Amino acid sequence: MPELRRDPVIGRWVIISTERAKRPSDFTVVPEVRRPGPCFFCEGHEAETPPEVFALRENHSAPNCPGWQVRVVPNKYPALRIEGDLNREGVGMCDMMNGVGAHEVIVETPEHDKSLADLDEFHISKILWVYTQRISDLGRDDRFKYVLVFKNQGEAAGASLQHAHSQLIATPVTPKWVKEELVGARSYYEYKQRCIFCDYIKQETRLFTERLVMNTEGFVALSPFAARFPFEIWILPKRHMCDFTYIEGREFGDLANVLRTVLNKMRVALHDPPFNFIIHTSPFRRPRAGYWGTIEQDYHWHFEIIPRLTKMAGFEWGSGFYINPTPPEVAAQVLRDAVPEA
Amino acid sequence: MPELRRDPVIGRWVIISTERAKRPSDFTVVPEVRRPGPCFFCEGHEAETPPEVFALRENHSAPNCPGWQVRVVPNKYPALRIEGDLNREGVGMCDMMNGVGAHEVIVETPEHDKSLADLDEFHISKILWVYTQRISDLGRDDRFKYVLVFKNQGEAAGASLQHAHSQLIATPVTPKWVKEELVGARSYYEYKQRCIFCDYIKQETRLFTERLVMNTEGFVALSPFAARFPFEIWILPKRHMCDFTYIEGREFGDLANVLRTVLNKMRVALHDPPFNFIIHTSPFRRPRAGYWGTIEQDYHWHFEIIPRLTKMAGFEWGSGFYINPTPPEVAAQVLRDAVPEA
Repeated sequence: MPELRRDPVIGRWVIISTERAKRPSDFTVVPEVRRPGPCFFCEGHEAETPPEVFALRENHSAPNCPGWQVRVVPNKYPALRIEGDLNREGVGMCDMMNGVGAHEVIVETPEHDKSLADLDEFHISKILWVYTQRISDLGRDDRFKYVLVFKNQGEAAGASLQHAHSQLIATPVTPKWVKEELVGARSYYEYKQRCIFCDYIKQETRLFTERLVMNTEGFVALSPFAARFPFEIWILPKRHMCDFTYIEGREFGDLANVLRTVLNKMRVALHDPPFNFIIHTSPFRRPRAGYWGTIEQDYHWHFEIIPRLTKMAGFEWGSGFYINPTPPEVAAQVLRDAVPEA
Repeated sequence: MPELRRDPVIGRWVIISTERAKRPSDFTVVPEVRRPGPCFFCEGHEAETPPEVFALRENHSAPNCPGWQVRVVPNKYPALRIEGDLNREGVGMCDMMNGVGAHEVIVETPEHDKSLADLDEFHISKILWVYTQRISDLGRDDRFKYVLVFKNQGEAAGASLQHAHSQLIATPVTPKWVKEELVGARSYYEYKQRCIFCDYIKQETRLFTERLVMNTEGFVALSPFAARFPFEIWILPKRHMCDFTYIEGREFGDLANVLRTVLNKMRVALHDPPFNFIIHTSPFRRPRAGYWGTIEQDYHWHFEIIPRLTKMAGFEWGSGFYINPTPPEVAAQVLRDAVPEA
């Protein structure tokens, strides 16, 4: 009998197929042909991108020159434009505003042939730290309400370039799923006076551990109870923090290790699948106080990692009602058992 | 400058690229190789499917034998099972129930080589009428809250079989987007004491007509103001009705004509793209009365048709925040101008 499971935060029901659960061998991943470098994200080709907005450099190397480790540049084909006012206006009963926002590319390494999972823990720490710097910086611009940090790896996941990179989009509106998570987390807080994510982490590490992939000092990686996609994995900090930029210096290495290990486990178990990840963090300019609690108290940032193993059918595409052919317990078991290549 | 547009019903913001708007020639549709028949949906192969639950037959032909025009069979690989109780239960702080539901296939024609757009208006009327019959019948089962009727055409849209068919899934929960639309429609009704869809149709047919594709006696086809996808088209009845099964006999032909024409315009203008459609209708067992109005008064059924021209990137996949490269005004113009093949 298949199961219907409800996501505790936003209340979304998902169909989980429990019979004939799809295992990694049931998914076909078409290996992508590697295009050789150099490309314009490579070291020595800095002049071929728009001028950098941020870079982590050693030895006092000059901007837009070699010598960087992580480099942030504006997207050449931005979805939103950095200049201009919002000009909110009505169009009949509808609403619109100018597409003002930032769209940046975080080049994760100067080396063309390394993917994120190939980088060492210290280098991944630097990338994560760069995310925090960009989020904080963009937060100073009053026009923006949110920064979405995400990564597409592989053509099937929407990546047009193979050189390892992630992206961010700063938007003048709060994305819909963020609002949904905020509303869900707040209503749980009103009821329990506790963070729903903290409670969920405790449940999944103490009461049931079958969906757990990793459990370190500071972080857990797990396949969520109502996972929408096969092998969907969330990484959450065990310490309560609503905002990704609250990560402390001492915690970056731990998070980098968890992210690196999960990606390498996926690579081995699922044959290097295309994937996306997205960081769910709190919006800027959140209210300071509330009767029942604030976003500071009730929201909890996390990573969502989604390997692209299935096509979305019409039904899912148009309805937000997902059918997941791999129970999260099976996915977690497979990933727990996977041994990353040395 | 790109635009941010907000869907008036559910409040979702969408990025619309206005510069370099993508026109049909910017999308690559890989033509699908037709697999020759007969297949188990063909006339004469009725024994190869599960026994039919409904069929439109002439000349008193017997069930599960040739002589049908539209035939409904249970899905051989159902996402949900028809037998059993719901057994709602908690799993720690999470919720689950048995995956009870109906999953049926509506075989649209006995002929292997015809697609929905090839069928004549009268035959399409019959398919639409069959949808109403199946929805009404499943509504008598107290376990179900909703029936989703949808169609995947083309492999890229999730169809595993080429013989023309649509599907329905009856679920014991209301899908998330239905809830969102109901909440949005209700809050507009509370404010205005009018149906938001009726107002929207009037705006798009009287005030602005640039997004209009067709406007017949009973129906409009339009590309919505905040379309998520290029060439996304909605078909709405001009007469207020919350439920798809309220279509009157005299209206089937008009709707069939609009659906048929839109699909044929898409086929010509977009080179026979894979597509999905989904019917948005009201849930079963809706409250009879409310202080401000009922679903009867504030909701309005409609078709959403989505050609699959783009891949969803990670950002859209995980955030519900869409980037649409073709403004709906451009899409509507292209489809208005498209002349279906004779």
